[in-house]
Order: sequence, then structure tokens, then C-alpha cells
Amino acid sequence: MPMTMYDASVPVFIRGLTNLDALLTKGEEYASANGLDPAELVGARLFPDMLPLSGQIQSASDTAKFCPARLTGTQGPSFADTETTFAELHTRIANTLDYLKTFEPAQFEGSETREVVLKSRRGERQFIGQAYLLGFALPNFFFHVTTAYDILRHKGVPIGKMDYLGG
Amino acid sequence: MPMTMYDASVPVFIRGLTNLDALLTKGEEYASANGLDPAELVGARLFPDMLPLSGQIQSASDTAKFCPARLTGTQGPSFADTETTFAELHTRIANTLDYLKTFEPAQFEGSETREVVLKSRRGERQFIGQAYLLGFALPNFFFHVTTAYDILRHKGVPIGKMDYLGG
Repeated sequence: MPMTMYDASVPVFIRGLTNLDALLTKGEEYASANGLDPAELVGARLFPDMLPLSGQIQSASDTAKFCPARLTGTQGPSFADTETTFAELHTRIANTLDYLKTFEPAQFEGSETREVVLKSRRGERQFIGQAYLLGFALPNFFFHVTTAYDILRHKGVPIGKMDYLGG
Repeated sequence: MPMTMYDASVPVFIRGLTNLDALLTKGEEYASANGLDPAELVGARLFPDMLPLSGQIQSASDTAKFCPARLTGTQGPSFADTETTFAELHTRIANTLDYLKTFEPAQFEGSETREVVLKSRRGERQFIGQAYLLGFALPNFFFHVTTAYDILRHKGVPIGKMDYLGG
């Protein structure tokens, strides 16, 4: 069976978000065991104008939900980006996972060449599906999962590469 | 044309390493403009037992070269991991890019189901090709490119997400 656009998107995001959820749990446990305010960890960042841990989770969630929506020409749920606690971040990930699990491989047929238009403050960017997935969505997703890992690690949480890569 | 194992590996690594090379240049320029010792930036890390910037580049290079070698059942070049300057890190990336550019898409036919065995100090891990690419090699590659970015950003280098994503 050749690899499909579905294979390289939905299950990859599900796996990455599942690992991210476990990393968050290790962060929570570390805060609890070391008398660290959980809010400090949720708000931690690597540089003053970078997104904090909460923003990295929100962005990982957004990348994971926008990608299959765009590739299948459907509309995903809207999340408000108001999470400020570990519990709320776990819920955000759980809601994203629930949404991702609604996709069927057949919905991605032909998505290699589907036109994808990204709208942002900077204007519009046009891609075709495969270039969007491989050159934008996957790098962007792993950027936010890794930066969440890096923030936790920078704050002393005892996690390792195998926690990031998962089972 | 359906997406191939070649599409989702070699060009993705070439693009990521090209962007990483440009990020390094911005780091060098920042060090030079701000009287920062380049060796301090090359040796910077986010936590005492994490790899420094040089180690992140070496690991990104290794992931990018091992993946197509394993998927095609060939042997890649060996690099000594002795880089300590920006010039040497640029050369490491250039050598990795030269090697990646030797691959032809036809070499990846059937690699979805090729058995891949990873040997490490922890023992052996077995994968089939597609699961190795999507669940191990790509996440690992982006981990090291992103962590290099995060180290530079943490040290104040003025880079942004578009530098990471490229063109």
C-alpha cells in the first residue's frame, strides 16, 4: 500500500498530540513535586516575545486541526485560545484529538493537488495540498510540540526524547 | 501523482537543512553585531544536560542522512561530530545536503514496507519503513531543527517562524 495524504497527516498529529499530552502531565507532576506554581510553568517562555507554553499547545492544536480541514475542504471547530491551566490545556488537546478521529482516509483522496489558501495578517498564501502538508503543516506542528518540550525542559522538567517521540 | 516516500523525506530534509543554514547565518550575524563570542552561541543550550546548538545541528544532519540511507538500504557518509565553529557547522550542513542530493526517487520504491532496524545503546528497535519515516525520522528531524531555532531565539537572535519554515 503506498503512503497516503491521510497517513502523513491525521495519525501523525494524533500521535504527536498524545505525546504532548503526556509531556504536559510530566510538567504538572514536576510542578506539584517541587512546589512550583503551575501557572508559572503554563506561562513560561524561552524569550519575552515568544509564545508561552500555553500558546505552544494552542498552536500545535490549531496546526493539527487546520491541516486536515484544509486538505479535505471542510471546516473544523473553533477554539477560543483562553486556556490558562494544565487542566484546560489537557481539554484542548482532548477536543483536538476527538475532532481528528472523525476523519476517514477516503476524504483525503486527491488532496495532493487540492488548492489550499492560508489567510493571515500578512495576506494570502497559496499552496497545493502536498506542498502544504510537507512544507508547512508538518514542520509547523512539530515546531510547536518541540517548543513546548523545550520550555518544559528549560524549566527543569525531567523529560527525554523518547517522551517526545512516544511509544 | 500520489505522494511518495521520497517526496516525504529527501526534499523535506533538504528544505529544513537549507532553512537551518540560514538560521545559523542569522546567529553569526547577531553575534558579530553584538560583540557576542560566536563560541558561546555555538555552545549554548536550554538546560545543562541538553545538547548545545552544535549538537542540535549534528543531530539534524544525522537524522536527515540516516533516514534515506535506511529507507533505501544503502550506507551514508560518516561525520565525526567535531564541529565547534559556525564555519564548521555550515560545512556539516553543506556536506549533508550534497549527500541528500545524490538520491533518486526510484530508490525509494517499496520502502513503505522495508524493515528498518535502529541500533542504539538501548538496544535494537524495529520499524517498517513508513512508520519509521512518519513516526520517528520526521519528528526527530524537526525536533533538532526547532531546538536549534529555540536556542538561537533564547539567546536573543532576531529570527521568526518564517525563517524556520522558509520560502
